Amino acid sequence: MTQNSSVVLARRPQGNPVPEDFRMETAETAPLDAGQFLVRNHFVSLDAGFRNWMDEDSGDNVLPAMAIGAPVMGLTLGRVAESQHPDFSVGEWLMARLAWQEYSLTDGSDFVIRLPDPLPGEPSYYLGVLGDTGLSAYFGMRDIGKPQPGETVLVSAAAGAVGSVAGQLARLMGARSVGVTSGADKCRRLIEELDYDAAVDRWEDLHQQIAEHCPDGIDVYFDNVGGPLLEVVLEHINEGARVVLCGAVASYGQQQAGPANLFQLVTKQASMTGFLTHTRSDAEYAAARETLLGWLQTGKLKAPEYRLHGIENVARAFCDLFAGRNFGKTVVALVDD
Amino acid sequence: MTQNSSVVLARRPQGNPVPEDFRMETAETAPLDAGQFLVRNHFVSLDAGFRNWMDEDSGDNVLPAMAIGAPVMGLTLGRVAESQHPDFSVGEWLMARLAWQEYSLTDGSDFVIRLPDPLPGEPSYYLGVLGDTGLSAYFGMRDIGKPQPGETVLVSAAAGAVGSVAGQLARLMGARSVGVTSGADKCRRLIEELDYDAAVDRWEDLHQQIAEHCPDGIDVYFDNVGGPLLEVVLEHINEGARVVLCGAVASYGQQQAGPANLFQLVTKQASMTGFLTHTRSDAEYAAARETLLGWLQTGKLKAPEYRLHGIENVARAFCDLFAGRNFGKTVVALVDD
Repeated sequence: MTQNSSVVLARRPQGNPVPEDFRMETAETAPLDAGQFLVRNHFVSLDAGFRNWMDEDSGDNVLPAMAIGAPVMGLTLGRVAESQHPDFSVGEWLMARLAWQEYSLTDGSDFVIRLPDPLPGEPSYYLGVLGDTGLSAYFGMRDIGKPQPGETVLVSAAAGAVGSVAGQLARLMGARSVGVTSGADKCRRLIEELDYDAAVDRWEDLHQQIAEHCPDGIDVYFDNVGGPLLEVVLEHINEGARVVLCGAVASYGQQQAGPANLFQLVTKQASMTGFLTHTRSDAEYAAARETLLGWLQTGKLKAPEYRLHGIENVARAFCDLFAGRNFGKTVVALVDD
Repeated sequence: MTQNSSVVLARRPQGNPVPEDFRMETAETAPLDAGQFLVRNHFVSLDAGFRNWMDEDSGDNVLPAMAIGAPVMGLTLGRVAESQHPDFSVGEWLMARLAWQEYSLTDGSDFVIRLPDPLPGEPSYYLGVLGDTGLSAYFGMRDIGKPQPGETVLVSAAAGAVGSVAGQLARLMGARSVGVTSGADKCRRLIEELDYDAAVDRWEDLHQQIAEHCPDGIDVYFDNVGGPLLEVVLEHINEGARVVLCGAVASYGQQQAGPANLFQLVTKQASMTGFLTHTRSDAEYAAARETLLGWLQTGKLKAPEYRLHGIENVARAFCDLFAGRNFGKTVVALVDD
């Protein structure tokens, strides 16, 4: 038996989450029953989408609401520490929808993906650039955005887990990439660290900046945020533009007035297409991971992380995500290598 | 010289047009200068889109606003009555953006399309089922909606010039067609006269009727109206649905809040695509017309018209269109055959 700290949901967040919505609890791990195994979580992934299930009624039917007082459901990367399960062996790397805790007990009925052992690349990549967010960028850009050489691609939440990959992919496909983020500092980092050709600051005049930084208009808008920004962007799209609505991001889930200028899609003969990543086949996932890993290893693709350390910082990292403090994928390392 | 009655714009309509927005004027036709020709308008086409250019600021940049006191700009079908123009001969059939008048003088710099002589089929078809509205239905359904056998296609403004063709095309492609229109009488006529499988009355509970008449959900939504109906429909779309935003209809042009549930496009991995018809090549137009004409001649396709007679009824026909009094394409015949 092992000491195990968890972050539990203390109350339901109102709007953006704050640290007081969560509290820590420590207990000993329970002995395993037959068919169970214990995962030591090395990393917790912080993803805005999980905010939805903290509400009493999430508005979707994907997963039930999280319970007050229970460990917060989240995506983790870990290794099997003990096993009484015939299919899972001690030491295996898993990505799983478990909880914000050091150790999670499961019978494997949760969402669990077995990862290659040994893991090629950095383990935490499998929560980011090689995980749902990176693959969302990859599939969304390759299959829907389809940027052509010389075209202009605008990416919202451009410093986020999805956006940071999407912008680089647009460039790798020969397009000009322009990112939207918050504040002059993150704008500068988009260009310096993520090779964006230009950056648009959400806090300044959007129409003016877009006109300046996208002088030839927008051919692909990779939208990670929805909301009022979409209406602004639609005023700048080109004939035949593709708007990609990326489902890895939560804010679409909030009911908010849609763009009043959908007619732009008509006059520009443009399309707006939503997608989810988890519907792909294992083979498609594997091929995409291999492509991205190759680019990571040759330095063509960068995978910045906003990384905190220790279970006591998981709630803070989650709150930071909503405050826009992250640059790149937000993770918390629970085990010091 | 010939007596020529015209309908002029008396004042700018507020909201839906009313008869008092227009007045009749009669004068003699002017003698032709070199390079001019006179068209006798046999039919005037009434299309909601022209309402936009009656405003001081139409909100688009396609055409300038119409002038108060000038003949109302409109689409007509006519024959060359006199000509001092080297390229246009007396007797030729033309479709042209001229005006609501019995005779129009032009130098050919207006939008003019020469039609085959003799005209196969009914002349007025070239303003409807074989004109912009029918071809919009055809290209939008064939190239964007792409209904598959067994799928469900919902059409808004289903009794209108575009919708009346779109619904029939969906059935010809093997899909189930459901139309949305206003009132029980037009609902009944959709089924009896246009072969719709079911009809939804805009004046009754929409969610309930759509659930009832589209029990397998909606695979294609051919949208001729935009606005609040789109938000309702998005709640009922299937995985992989295609929403076709048809540009032949004006109401998109009015700024109105967009759907608050665009997230449905993400969760259903669906697309929304706008299109215009006039960007196609002449060859594409001709091939499409031939296909549609073939279906008309074999009775597979019906082309209902809401037809009034005489220049004095053109303004009324236009107002009737906005009041939803039409069933099928709205035209006024100015020449009794």
